[in-house]
Amino acid sequence: MKLGQATIKDIAKELNVSTSTVSRALKDYPGISDETKRKVKELADRLNYRPNAVALSLRKSKSFTIGVIIPEVVHFFFSTVISGVEEVAHANGYNVILVQTNEKLSREKSSIETMLSNQIDGVLVSYSRETTDFSHFKKLMDLDFPIVFFDRKPDLENTVNVTVNDYQGAYDATRHLVSQGYVKIAHLAGPSNLAISKRRKEGYLKALEDAGLSGRPDWIVECPSGSESESYQIAMELFKDKTDRPDAIFAHHDIVAAGAMIAIKKLGLKIPEDVGVVGYSNWQFSSMIDPPLSTVSQPGFSIGENATHLLLDMIAGKEPGYQRPQDVMLDTELVIRKSSLRVP
Amino acid sequence: MKLGQATIKDIAKELNVSTSTVSRALKDYPGISDETKRKVKELADRLNYRPNAVALSLRKSKSFTIGVIIPEVVHFFFSTVISGVEEVAHANGYNVILVQTNEKLSREKSSIETMLSNQIDGVLVSYSRETTDFSHFKKLMDLDFPIVFFDRKPDLENTVNVTVNDYQGAYDATRHLVSQGYVKIAHLAGPSNLAISKRRKEGYLKALEDAGLSGRPDWIVECPSGSESESYQIAMELFKDKTDRPDAIFAHHDIVAAGAMIAIKKLGLKIPEDVGVVGYSNWQFSSMIDPPLSTVSQPGFSIGENATHLLLDMIAGKEPGYQRPQDVMLDTELVIRKSSLRVP
Repeated sequence: MKLGQATIKDIAKELNVSTSTVSRALKDYPGISDETKRKVKELADRLNYRPNAVALSLRKSKSFTIGVIIPEVVHFFFSTVISGVEEVAHANGYNVILVQTNEKLSREKSSIETMLSNQIDGVLVSYSRETTDFSHFKKLMDLDFPIVFFDRKPDLENTVNVTVNDYQGAYDATRHLVSQGYVKIAHLAGPSNLAISKRRKEGYLKALEDAGLSGRPDWIVECPSGSESESYQIAMELFKDKTDRPDAIFAHHDIVAAGAMIAIKKLGLKIPEDVGVVGYSNWQFSSMIDPPLSTVSQPGFSIGENATHLLLDMIAGKEPGYQRPQDVMLDTELVIRKSSLRVP
Repeated sequence: MKLGQATIKDIAKELNVSTSTVSRALKDYPGISDETKRKVKELADRLNYRPNAVALSLRKSKSFTIGVIIPEVVHFFFSTVISGVEEVAHANGYNVILVQTNEKLSREKSSIETMLSNQIDGVLVSYSRETTDFSHFKKLMDLDFPIVFFDRKPDLENTVNVTVNDYQGAYDATRHLVSQGYVKIAHLAGPSNLAISKRRKEGYLKALEDAGLSGRPDWIVECPSGSESESYQIAMELFKDKTDRPDAIFAHHDIVAAGAMIAIKKLGLKIPEDVGVVGYSNWQFSSMIDPPLSTVSQPGFSIGENATHLLLDMIAGKEPGYQRPQDVMLDTELVIRKSSLRVP
């Protein structure tokens, strides 16, 4: 047996398990023990088994299907991105399949395998919160498989990305709070392993600095899950000291802001008179809560459109002379509503 | 050439087009003229070309992937269903791919083709608002392809369905409004071609009847798009006559209710003192709006779990003696919040 030509059968025979077990172990599916997975993967590595390469080389014609890997479909921002993706894909004769990872690395890895075995022509990816090692994407790129990252830019070389200028969005939101006379502005931040969280925090800090205000480390609180109940608890804690508490909140996203608003109102404080609040992402509900929430609107639809155009270019353009497309960075828009408007 | 053995090549040759054009025309992909699609399909029919049958019979092993076809991922109800589906699927070693139809029949049809050509083992379907002819599903069923319908039950024999008792949910919501002293209860209804809309309207009418109240046809208004702005307009119209207007609204879903609430408040009426409002589906935002919205909660997660269990049974159970699983109907739960609570 030559290296690189090992089959699933070879691996199954050597380990005395079924080919189905080998296939599922390689795809990191649940229902197979970690021990078996380890054994199968070690042997596959040793024999230089490359399922992707084989699958890819076997593909004779286009499937006219692209895949989208996203953390959560329920997140309003991602659902607007999907609409943009579908708009461009359908107009160009492509269908779209979605896989959600629920922010889990293990599901992201098995999604990649599912997508590949389903013979899609290319994939759009916003990776999970858990992902810090990007080797599963690197493998795809090494096989020249078309892949475009959106919203979340991975720590890999030569990727094609469509992102949002989150630094500027956070800067604008914070500067707006300053313009309304708020001086003790806290930040409910996103998970620290996401670059978008980092950029939003940096934009917030720069706006404070430009206004001559000093940021307080204990007023920057990470909200790892991003749930309403979590930020409710965090805001309760943040506002409990009556003599030393913030007068405004810039939140990582609108659900986080909404949870904090419930806490602030519960404490008898008025929004926007006592406390100003600005969120991020302009969720559907944000104009309907009390008071309506100011927020930073991301161009989700446009992100989807841009990312899909780039991906289709990559799928179409594999001839000599083809150049990798350039990254795209899109601007946000500050939507001012009552929750932060106390200067008439 | 024997009937039933025609290939895409045969069709392409006869019509003097490329095989890729034939393939895309058969899949109803955009980017191919209607004229070409018609010609290709007519010839395919004449030659008894059966892509699904061929694809299915060619399949040698399971893909351990199931597909979900849904109208819209952004709809909170569907996203909770997806969570339930993924819970059961992943626990059983299956991956899940999603396709959204945006409530369009054409996308639903091409989704079915995409799913089949991607060699999934079975499919969960909630069909689009536009779908009144179910022959594309009938074809799958004739091929013994595992399929379970959820939420929306098609007008087909021998389907396996997981639905919600919408009649009872609507009855409970309306009876609750009656118990709060509302006597002029209007209904903002869903699209009339969906069975769920019909059942909700029937539950509403029965509750009125049981309370000795007579329904008024002009107070039952269909909201075809289900958007907030649409129901805002409808409610403005419904409440414009000060001497003859409803004192309560039972809405087909929460977005519709939220749009009506904005109109009611705009007219200077108080919720719940002057007008009571109950929605449907218990969207994420419903507890956060002003006042918090009473609603009928559907067991989305449980629908997803049940539907997936049935589907996996069907996938696993194709031996002799296998019996089709029974339909499942799940109960709703009335969630009472401030928008309909005027009796202390």
